[in-house]
This record gives sequence, C-alpha cells and structure tokens, in this order.
Amino acid sequence: MRVYMREFKVVSKREREIINITDRVRELIKESGIKEGLALVFSKHTTTGIFINENERGLERDVINYFNEAVRDDGDYFHHHYFYKDGRMAVNAWAHLRSILVGLNVVIPLRDGELLLGSRENVYLAEFDGPKERTLVITVLGE
Amino acid sequence: MRVYMREFKVVSKREREIINITDRVRELIKESGIKEGLALVFSKHTTTGIFINENERGLERDVINYFNEAVRDDGDYFHHHYFYKDGRMAVNAWAHLRSILVGLNVVIPLRDGELLLGSRENVYLAEFDGPKERTLVITVLGE
Amino acid sequence: MRVYMREFKVVSKREREIINITDRVRELIKESGIKEGLALVFSKHTTTGIFINENERGLERDVINYFNEAVRDDGDYFHHHYFYKDGRMAVNAWAHLRSILVGLNVVIPLRDGELLLGSRENVYLAEFDGPKERTLVITVLGE
Repeated sequence: MRVYMREFKVVSKREREIINITDRVRELIKESGIKEGLALVFSKHTTTGIFINENERGLERDVINYFNEAVRDDGDYFHHHYFYKDGRMAVNAWAHLRSILVGLNVVIPLRDGELLLGSRENVYLAEFDGPKERTLVITVLGE
Repeated sequence: MRVYMREFKVVSKREREIINITDRVRELIKESGIKEGLALVFSKHTTTGIFINENERGLERDVINYFNEAVRDDGDYFHHHYFYKDGRMAVNAWAHLRSILVGLNVVIPLRDGELLLGSRENVYLAEFDGPKERTLVITVLGE
Repeated sequence: MRVYMREFKVVSKREREIINITDRVRELIKESGIKEGLALVFSKHTTTGIFINENERGLERDVINYFNEAVRDDGDYFHHHYFYKDGRMAVNAWAHLRSILVGLNVVIPLRDGELLLGSRENVYLAEFDGPKERTLVITVLGE
C-alpha cells in the first residue's frame, strides 16, 4: 500500500466559472503508478467547490446560474460588515456559502490505474470568486 | 493494508426516489473481510446522490419534496437547449443540479468489520431521474 | 500503512451553532503519528454537518442564517406527521435537510504529520438541532 500526493494549480479566468479538471487528475493518477485504491481531490480555497458532473457546456452555465439564484449576492451578510470595519471590501460571503453547498473535496475509486468514473462523470472545480490561481491537492492511496 | 472493490446494482422504480442501501453496503463490507479502515460509497451517475440520514418514511418524502422546491423543474436551463438542438428530449438539468447539492459519494469509518455509523444513520441513494438501473461502487481500504 | 481511529465529543450550546473543531482534529492527527495519507472527519448524527470554511465570526452567522432561509422551519413536513402520530414532538425535518445539504463528512490530505489545509481553511461542525453532546469520528490512513 502506498501514498502519492501532489499539489497542482488551476487558473480561473472569470469571477464565476466551472472548470473541467478531469484530464489533469487522470495525468496525476497515471504518474502515481497506483493501480487500485482511491483518489481524493481537495481544494485549498474556501470560495471554490469540487464536484462531479456531466461534461456539457449548457449544464456548466446552469450550475453557475443556479448558485447565483440559490445564494443571493445582495443579502445583508455579517461577513461583509467585518470586512467593512477592516477597511477592506472582500464582500464575498455568497462565494463561501456556495462552496459549503458544493463541498470542496471528492473521493473517487481507482481501478486498473484509472479513475472508476461513470461514462458521463467528469471532475470539476467550481470557481465562485475568481479570477484567481487556485491550488488543488490530489492524494492517492492504494497498491 | 488491503483494498477491496465491488460494483453493485440498484434499481429505482420511480422518477424521484430515496432508496436505503445500508444493508447492501453492510453485506459487501462483510464480504471484504476488512476490519478497520474506511469505506467509500460512490455513484457512477450524475443524476443521483449518495447521502447519510435517518431511516424514516416521512423524512424520505421530505427529501424529495425539498429538492423539488429548491431546484425548480421549469427553469429555463441551457442544458435543455442543447438537447433540443440535438433532437433529444433529455431535459433533466434539475436532476444534475440536485445531484451536485447532495454529492455522489460518502466515506464512512469501518471498525471491527462494521460500518461505524450513528444509531440513526443509514446510507441512501437519491434517484433524481429514474426509473433506472444504477451502478454504485464500494471501495474499502484497511486491514 | 496504518489505520488510526478515535471517537471524540463536541458539546453544542445553542440550537443552531457553527463550531470550529480544527484544533481538536489537529491534536488527534498528532496523536496518530501518521505522517502522510488522509484524514476522514465523520459525524454520527443526522442533524449535523461537517464542512470546511474560513474562520470568521460574521461568516459563521451567515452560514446559520443561510440555512434558516434555504430550508424553512415552518414547512409541512411528513417527518413531523410521523412524530405527531407517535405522540412525540421531535419536529426537526429542517435539521435533517440542512445536514444533507452540508454533508456529514470531509476527507483532508495529510502531509508531514499535519492537515494539508489552505491558509484560511478550518474544519467545522454545524449543529442544526442542539444543544447536544455530539460524537465525531476521526479515521487516519497513511504511513
């Protein structure tokens, strides 16, 4: 049984963006040389999410629109009061709340050296407060 | 330290359904022979969810009703435009969005060869676009 | 490769509360002696959540307020009918639904004997039906 771990960067280009990271994750799995076990994909940022869903452009837009509606930008958030006092304007409570709803890690089975995903499953980073360079971590355990 | 992995099928009978899969997961844990570690329950389908909650019939209906309200069926989803162009009618963006909210994997501690669940905790498959035969994967790591 | 597992208690003081458990988790990681791998933080209660987010007081209030709005207390829930019939008044379907949205476990990479969290990432227990004594489980796999 072995452990493999790597950090990798993903650069978002817009404030809100759904980025398919499946190919990057597959490369790192290959590099790990581990054949059977599981892979954890984890984001180090509290205004992002990691999720699995279908690779379809329209659906990617629907995800952004859904979270825009489900967590309003213009609520009277306490997090914003804090930053206001502080003389800063990082008024992004909505991005944190969206991150909590999506979650910022997924765990995927690994078989024969490949992610054991369904035929439509892709791994996504949800950027809720970009554009930024983000650091993700992949951890593979297995043999 | 060992790895055990099995795919198993769950058949949903309705379009939206909450299916208790705890007994199936327990059987596979027993079959694995692994005593201490963790178990990943993962769904290969992007219109399903995996979650843990209380085994109570009324609550199962509440879960379906909640997601029906939280993600409206009649939104103007881009995912549907795509399928319309394509000549298909798989207009199920809402099912994908519900899947993202619930998440499609859970990880559970394993002790003395049993799931270490709380007394009210059960493992559920949420079907958001049935009826269908679904494939889940259980991965157990431990010793 | 080794497995380390401990249950630990967290006592909530209010009905709805966001409790930072990062220090407790760090102590147990240290006690495990495991240097590289991953840590599962799991709650044994279906009216709680486990999530990762920023350690800021205003944001903690925003999380509670958000879930109060997103899952209404005064819905006509079937779960409540059940308990009513039963002669009990444990009318807390909303707490279960909030738990499903947040999720009740997170998995975190472990490197050099420390949680590999981003600089703003903290681990939280969301109490949705307190005050209560809650039991959480930490499982560490690695070497």
